[in-house]
Amino acid sequence: MKKLSILFLLLSTLGFSQSADEKQMKSIYDMALTDGMAYDWLNHISNQIGGRLSGSVEAQMAVDYTKKELEDLGVDRVWLQPVMVPKWVRGLPESAKIVTEDGTAVTVPICALGGSVATPALGINANVVEVQGIDDLARLGREKIEGKIVFFNRPMDPTEIVTFTAYGGCVDQRYSGAAEAGKLGAIGVIVRSVNLRLDDYPHTGAMSYGDTPVKNRIPAAAISTKGADLLSTSLHLNPKTKFYFKQNCRQLEDVQSYNVVGEIKGSMYPNEIILVGGHLDSWDLGDGSHDDGAGCVQSMDVLRLIKASGYVPKRTIRVVLFMNEENGLRGGSKYAEVAKNKKENHIFALESDAGGFSPRGFSFDSSEANFDRIQEWKKLFEPYLIHLFEKGGSGADIGPLKNPNMVLAGLRPDSQRYFDHHHAANDTFEHVNKRELELGAATMASLVYLFDKYGIVPPKKIKG
Amino acid sequence: MKKLSILFLLLSTLGFSQSADEKQMKSIYDMALTDGMAYDWLNHISNQIGGRLSGSVEAQMAVDYTKKELEDLGVDRVWLQPVMVPKWVRGLPESAKIVTEDGTAVTVPICALGGSVATPALGINANVVEVQGIDDLARLGREKIEGKIVFFNRPMDPTEIVTFTAYGGCVDQRYSGAAEAGKLGAIGVIVRSVNLRLDDYPHTGAMSYGDTPVKNRIPAAAISTKGADLLSTSLHLNPKTKFYFKQNCRQLEDVQSYNVVGEIKGSMYPNEIILVGGHLDSWDLGDGSHDDGAGCVQSMDVLRLIKASGYVPKRTIRVVLFMNEENGLRGGSKYAEVAKNKKENHIFALESDAGGFSPRGFSFDSSEANFDRIQEWKKLFEPYLIHLFEKGGSGADIGPLKNPNMVLAGLRPDSQRYFDHHHAANDTFEHVNKRELELGAATMASLVYLFDKYGIVPPKKIKG
Repeated sequence: MKKLSILFLLLSTLGFSQSADEKQMKSIYDMALTDGMAYDWLNHISNQIGGRLSGSVEAQMAVDYTKKELEDLGVDRVWLQPVMVPKWVRGLPESAKIVTEDGTAVTVPICALGGSVATPALGINANVVEVQGIDDLARLGREKIEGKIVFFNRPMDPTEIVTFTAYGGCVDQRYSGAAEAGKLGAIGVIVRSVNLRLDDYPHTGAMSYGDTPVKNRIPAAAISTKGADLLSTSLHLNPKTKFYFKQNCRQLEDVQSYNVVGEIKGSMYPNEIILVGGHLDSWDLGDGSHDDGAGCVQSMDVLRLIKASGYVPKRTIRVVLFMNEENGLRGGSKYAEVAKNKKENHIFALESDAGGFSPRGFSFDSSEANFDRIQEWKKLFEPYLIHLFEKGGSGADIGPLKNPNMVLAGLRPDSQRYFDHHHAANDTFEHVNKRELELGAATMASLVYLFDKYGIVPPKKIKG
Repeated sequence: MKKLSILFLLLSTLGFSQSADEKQMKSIYDMALTDGMAYDWLNHISNQIGGRLSGSVEAQMAVDYTKKELEDLGVDRVWLQPVMVPKWVRGLPESAKIVTEDGTAVTVPICALGGSVATPALGINANVVEVQGIDDLARLGREKIEGKIVFFNRPMDPTEIVTFTAYGGCVDQRYSGAAEAGKLGAIGVIVRSVNLRLDDYPHTGAMSYGDTPVKNRIPAAAISTKGADLLSTSLHLNPKTKFYFKQNCRQLEDVQSYNVVGEIKGSMYPNEIILVGGHLDSWDLGDGSHDDGAGCVQSMDVLRLIKASGYVPKRTIRVVLFMNEENGLRGGSKYAEVAKNKKENHIFALESDAGGFSPRGFSFDSSEANFDRIQEWKKLFEPYLIHLFEKGGSGADIGPLKNPNMVLAGLRPDSQRYFDHHHAANDTFEHVNKRELELGAATMASLVYLFDKYGIVPPKKIKG
């Protein structure tokens, strides 16, 4: 009988606990969908400020605006964390054309890759060698590359269901193409936009020259997918087809910028920190609504939703809007460095940096013991159509914080439309759906609530 | 040892079978994403033809076009199934304004509800009584309603995660509001658009006068959500605010139309029919891309994908593009009537009529025995991020076919954006994402493949 009583008590307690969690999550979702602030904040960041490239005036305006909004929420503490960031400027105009052997020219949409050097003042006009990736360069050798423009044209693989996997299969061309082609004497690089759609938007993104000496650096630009198909077809019709492009971008001195941080102090374990964040900087072509205005305003709303729901966090809940994810990761690195110096104990960090689309779940970078516990929460999310709880990457900005005792996670929204907008002029506010954005914020707030309430499996248990 | 051998054999067979299904589904998804025809077909139906209201020239053009395309696929048989359909015409222009007590007027966007009568030639100008639903009418009584326009302003509930549930909670105002308000002497009805967004698009949709005599029918129109908020606020500021609207719609004689049908004959059980379909008619304001051009082209592509994959169906796979789902369901009713007369044995029917968005799964109307079997297929869909396998409704057009021995199902795409476009002028091609549409077609084709290969649990087993 006694055993039965204990069992009964245990079941009742579990039952009550389950029901309290259900109630809290329902309250979070209801508030996000009826009284969310994420969409209004995004409207300001996107439409009143715009693209927020590191070191730009807009980036500073976004720092000032989000700091003020967090202060207005009345959270316990808001501050700016100084970080020096690179300042690369596009220096418009930039232009390109396909020049056929008889001299006729067709203009095609390009944009300089972030970090690229300029072309000479009169532009570059040269023969083109088309390749499907970096591996092709060695096969062709210096003889066929020297003095030419290398055209990297490997498309994203449309059969990958998760578009980020297809992105991962292409982005090396963009990141390292110029460094590698330059070693073999190429004078410029054109990269097919990392986008699944056929359209007229060139998509920028970070590139690196590695240890290439400054004098040997060659300019690199992205061409729209339709432009890439046109260039490829033109080359097949006549290999003597030339390409002309001109860009004026420049790398300036590093400038002062900031991560924006706000927190609610934990009532029981204030030294256990739960971080939620996105990155405040964006590329310059669009207004950075999906990448990553969405993640910033969702993270801010997590703090607000938890506070407004009346739930008193046991642990410290901290929102961090990181600076310079796109071309340097200086904000994420600085944050981790300061956290280490202060011996701060982050138990959980969640980043939203995959667009403001319908949330599908999370991917977790965690120990097996913690992942097992997380699986027990899955059923709480089912009413909200959140099904994905997988092991995998988390987010670029929170990566530097990683240690074996903590859990890192990334929000996983539906990925089908993301690369239509990513790093391009059409990453704009009207492509974000209010409800989808709000559902993402509520999904994040619910997971933060559960980690706050139940904590993580202590390290000693992990070892045991 | 013998038992072990049998177990081993059994496991091997199951293992092999699993792997063959995985391979077949991978082939279907790959083809849909690299070589799909759904998007091109939708481009034609939406951009070359346009809105396809029953009885319109456009509806007939869509019948001719899809019949020709199915014939070009080289399936075993394509035919038109005659069905008489209602012909309601909008008869533009239609207009409305909020008229304040001092005579100033503000134009607001409205559209006649499908099936509504016209206003008198000079329009209707009257005082307005705002209600939150049909239940409010009895409470107010004839005294407060007679001679007025009734304004049904209950919004969709934003806290419902599945937007179709929120739709179900509002649509009675649109469907029966005029019949009920007319009984109490109202002279017109204005209904808040069944849409979660605040925007300027009025959303039409079917309404019915029930058994109201023709002479007692009052005109009914939808007002955009922003227009509804403006009218509501105006009424709160001054209850003497009037509303004016004018519309010229008419119900004409029924006309001849068709369901479009194509099939691949089953190689082993040709009398067991698997149906996949959508509805070819749409409302007239947009081009009907999501509702339900998407479902039609996905269904057509199911037939093509199965044929092109080299799989030889055991059962007859039939695509049906139904006519007149929106304002009569004549196509679905006729199809079921003919099937019954011919004693056709439909074992499974699947409809796609919830938009061309990222597929999330299916809802099933089936016996427990069949639903249990379906659950076993869930893991096959996981690599494609298809998680929802729930009991629930299927589709309006296939509903009349229902019998206890068969399985009915509806594709369930992400529903967050659907009602932004539903029945409105912005249900247009550019709001359909190519990959999302193709993923839906592949998901449908995969389920059709599994039902073809494994059949359904026979009725006698259900009884046992």
